[in-house]
Amino acid sequence: MTPERRARLMSVLNKRQNDLTVVMENVFDPHNISAVMRTCDAVGVQEIYVLNTKIPRHKKWGAKSSSSAAKWLTIHQFTDAQACFDELRKKYQRILTTHLSSDAIHLYDIDFTGSLALVFGNEHSGVSDEIRAMADGNFIIPQVGIIRSLNISVACAVTLYEAHRQKRLAGHYDQRRLQDPQLSALLAEWDLKEDDYDR
Amino acid sequence: MTPERRARLMSVLNKRQNDLTVVMENVFDPHNISAVMRTCDAVGVQEIYVLNTKIPRHKKWGAKSSSSAAKWLTIHQFTDAQACFDELRKKYQRILTTHLSSDAIHLYDIDFTGSLALVFGNEHSGVSDEIRAMADGNFIIPQVGIIRSLNISVACAVTLYEAHRQKRLAGHYDQRRLQDPQLSALLAEWDLKEDDYDR
Repeated sequence: MTPERRARLMSVLNKRQNDLTVVMENVFDPHNISAVMRTCDAVGVQEIYVLNTKIPRHKKWGAKSSSSAAKWLTIHQFTDAQACFDELRKKYQRILTTHLSSDAIHLYDIDFTGSLALVFGNEHSGVSDEIRAMADGNFIIPQVGIIRSLNISVACAVTLYEAHRQKRLAGHYDQRRLQDPQLSALLAEWDLKEDDYDR
Repeated sequence: MTPERRARLMSVLNKRQNDLTVVMENVFDPHNISAVMRTCDAVGVQEIYVLNTKIPRHKKWGAKSSSSAAKWLTIHQFTDAQACFDELRKKYQRILTTHLSSDAIHLYDIDFTGSLALVFGNEHSGVSDEIRAMADGNFIIPQVGIIRSLNISVACAVTLYEAHRQKRLAGHYDQRRLQDPQLSALLAEWDLKEDDYDR
């Protein structure tokens, strides 16, 4: 690995966050999946969960574009909700879903400096009742319009950037947050990938 | 108009903002256009500008979905950049483009409580040199990932929700901001539209 390439990869790895993840439950549109992944990469979310209980396992990740974020993320795929949550519970302290309910908290009232998994649901039916029952609560993104729903990749981006804003203020991007074993493994893995940077 | 319908439409009109707009320059993907419009509706942006100097005029707005935001927005279409900017200058005090440049300001350093037009560019080539030369400056959305670019509808959403966050704190959603003639005209226009709400 050239020093330049190592420096570039490390500059990204040094910003990756170990306490924030995104779960996509039965999200089926490749455009949405691809956009969510790009946003995860952009704010430093390394690990994401794809839970498909009602739609087939995805074969590819809208990866037509050479700049697909998928290859730079660690993607955990599940078809069983309980198995997915068992894994999430090992790594994240709180699991919140996007859902309009009377007890939902406001996006800006979420403390994103804590360990958090965020669940986004299917384009049409949202987060399932099953998943909501397993999670720790719901949150809503404030809206003042007539439609009252956002595209899922938009909802995810607004949420992750509020997380980014809070985490930045809390200094979460100022020092490395991945542990050494994970960081070394990712560096070795990334070194095998073609980098889009110089195209 | 039933009192209920009037109340619903007024509740949205009372949150519409008269000092914030979005300009889409040669954005061609209907998914992106549709998602941008939904986000505009969601944060109370009523008027948007579609400037197509390099791609054909759009015939429809990804309006397959009955919940398309397009019909609830005031859409100004231009094919001439100067004519578009002449109109923008009449209504907005500052015009910023999204562009990675050395003099670009940071999203979070923008004062969104002032009168502002935000220009988002083509999916591949971004905002054109021509438009950047006519604008008042560039801004960037902070990113710590390897890809270094966001989907345009994601970039717009992150920007508009930062505007929403600042404007909310500044009380811009607490009292009506549209002037009476515009509000009355929109109410009459909206009354003619089929409302998706009760579907």
